[in-house]
Amino acid sequence: MNSVTLLQPQKIIFGEGVIEQLAGDSLIQRAQTVLFLVAPPLVPILEGIIQSSKFSNKQVKLVAYRFLGEPTFSQFNLLLDEHKALKPDCVVGVGGGSVLDCAKLLAALINHSQKLEDIVGMGLLHDRKTHLICVPTTSGTGSEVSPNAILLDEETQAKRGIISPFLVPDACYLDPVLTVTLPPKLTAETGIDALSHCIEAYTNKFAHPTVDIYALKGISLIAEYIQEAFENGSNMNARSAMLLGSMYGGLCLGPVNTAAVHALSYGLGGKFHIPHGLSNAILMPKVLKFNMSASLKRHADVARALGITISGTDKEVALAGINKIERLSKACQIPQRLTEIGVTEDDIPELATIAMNVTRLLKNNPREVSREDTINIYKNIL
Amino acid sequence: MNSVTLLQPQKIIFGEGVIEQLAGDSLIQRAQTVLFLVAPPLVPILEGIIQSSKFSNKQVKLVAYRFLGEPTFSQFNLLLDEHKALKPDCVVGVGGGSVLDCAKLLAALINHSQKLEDIVGMGLLHDRKTHLICVPTTSGTGSEVSPNAILLDEETQAKRGIISPFLVPDACYLDPVLTVTLPPKLTAETGIDALSHCIEAYTNKFAHPTVDIYALKGISLIAEYIQEAFENGSNMNARSAMLLGSMYGGLCLGPVNTAAVHALSYGLGGKFHIPHGLSNAILMPKVLKFNMSASLKRHADVARALGITISGTDKEVALAGINKIERLSKACQIPQRLTEIGVTEDDIPELATIAMNVTRLLKNNPREVSREDTINIYKNIL
Repeated sequence: MNSVTLLQPQKIIFGEGVIEQLAGDSLIQRAQTVLFLVAPPLVPILEGIIQSSKFSNKQVKLVAYRFLGEPTFSQFNLLLDEHKALKPDCVVGVGGGSVLDCAKLLAALINHSQKLEDIVGMGLLHDRKTHLICVPTTSGTGSEVSPNAILLDEETQAKRGIISPFLVPDACYLDPVLTVTLPPKLTAETGIDALSHCIEAYTNKFAHPTVDIYALKGISLIAEYIQEAFENGSNMNARSAMLLGSMYGGLCLGPVNTAAVHALSYGLGGKFHIPHGLSNAILMPKVLKFNMSASLKRHADVARALGITISGTDKEVALAGINKIERLSKACQIPQRLTEIGVTEDDIPELATIAMNVTRLLKNNPREVSREDTINIYKNIL
Repeated sequence: MNSVTLLQPQKIIFGEGVIEQLAGDSLIQRAQTVLFLVAPPLVPILEGIIQSSKFSNKQVKLVAYRFLGEPTFSQFNLLLDEHKALKPDCVVGVGGGSVLDCAKLLAALINHSQKLEDIVGMGLLHDRKTHLICVPTTSGTGSEVSPNAILLDEETQAKRGIISPFLVPDACYLDPVLTVTLPPKLTAETGIDALSHCIEAYTNKFAHPTVDIYALKGISLIAEYIQEAFENGSNMNARSAMLLGSMYGGLCLGPVNTAAVHALSYGLGGKFHIPHGLSNAILMPKVLKFNMSASLKRHADVARALGITISGTDKEVALAGINKIERLSKACQIPQRLTEIGVTEDDIPELATIAMNVTRLLKNNPREVSREDTINIYKNIL
């Protein structure tokens, strides 16, 4: 069995209403100064929590996150400059992937001599001195448990990853109640993103038994509940399952990470500002069809986790799984083609160039991907 | 879905030879003074590691663990007194469950105002200021990932648990190479102990889907490899599987914990000094037969994870699973009856009294256990 490094928050608290426990968290109780970075819709809830007597002897600053779309290098640096003087000993992020990624980077850099530019890439952050708690309000990125943060480099329009064990939060609170107001469109797109984390980890060249159990559990939870969460957002069973599924996707990111779906998605996000989950949703079926020959058995396992029960060859089962992903995606009204989201054939060469540069993820793909393969995949989904 | 708190080390490094990475661990690199508590057979390996240039600017103390059997309150306090002046900022435990439990408690109390007597029970430890790394050399207790430590109260001859989120290590290194020299008898007994953690978590009254995946994975790994690890200790596949299985058992201990097998085992350990794994091995089949009516479906799931493939009613499948545990236990030459290990009928009333006091675990049992039930179970395995 290969070696593996499993990273996750030392404490994961999951369940309806667990946000109520946040004020009593030992990291907050030990802190003197707490900085909250909060997605705007959640600000009233967090304001209520901060009123608790548990904060009476602390300095607390609540910052409403104000950027739209993928956060950029300069937006993050602005945030950092604005709040550096506070010297918090605990940062709490409450929101979707962008908010959590910024909160993670704030905790890393706010009491630290390294600059953002020093830590872009793998394993370059030396330390984190500030405690970090994440509270996700979408079921998608899994950032609350992962060592990853993604920012947009505005100069090159490329998304860049900052990956470090020190970006894994110390604790996270997974409260499905906070995800209930997430609109159907975002529920679907972020849900497919979480599904793609699990599938790209399980079919990964560096798949590992310790990560497989997270991947398969995540796939089955999301496949069973994504349509219900999309159609009936107040169904707490569905919201709970999606939030757990997304956590399992996040647990796959550190030790194994994603592959070609995410690499091919980078240009769509960076250049065309297409939401990350949406671009992954459009790409995933075609990339899986391209990949499956490299590992029919693993793609059939994915299909069974997706709920496929037909008997047949691994190839037949795997294909039925890919069809099921397409069915779920359509049932959640996710566009199926690039032209529906404003991308034309002329854009493909540049998209392929961006994708081929994401070697950090392409190296994980079960089948080698050439520039020509990439162009063919994009053409197939025009 | 019920709420759950999942606790585990932020970093778990698993694989053959990963002990080589220990010197470069960021917690050690940040430390000025490191205290190693090491099981005697591992001392030469650790002495080699400490020679590394990575320790050249640090104060390092290597303490060979010297107690036999379950560590007692006074033995632990002696350890603490001997090393308190060192004021380490990182404690590293390398050994079986007793060594790791003592290392965990040392890290908790060595720079702290609370005393051991203040923290016995659930959630009484206020904090841990010293970093903690655990390196298991048996595949049994799962202490390297759990919030539990167990000591023997020599006055009452009762085993007492100290349970706290602060006892979860910051990092652990799971290197199956370190378990290769574990003798067959200990391999078998500790392996059955790990199996019992998984089974008692999965059939637990407070079982949770997030813990079930650990429990089932642990059961299937241990069932597949325990006999091979017993018969051929140098088989690295078997050693790897057992070490992972034991980790999964440990991950069950925080959120769900064990039940009647462990409660009935307490007196055998405390009073008769019977090794923990051995007493669990003798008790488990009979306790499961007693419990199964409370949840036939769950006991059948356990049987399938154990490798039972027969079709039949849940009851038939569950019974086949219990028979398989007995077969594995016999194949590993584990005694099957209390009289083989020096316990007589006269001892039963006292054993039952001790067991009935372990309400912390009995409350988890799927079926209510009366004193009379307890006595009957002991009589059945005389």
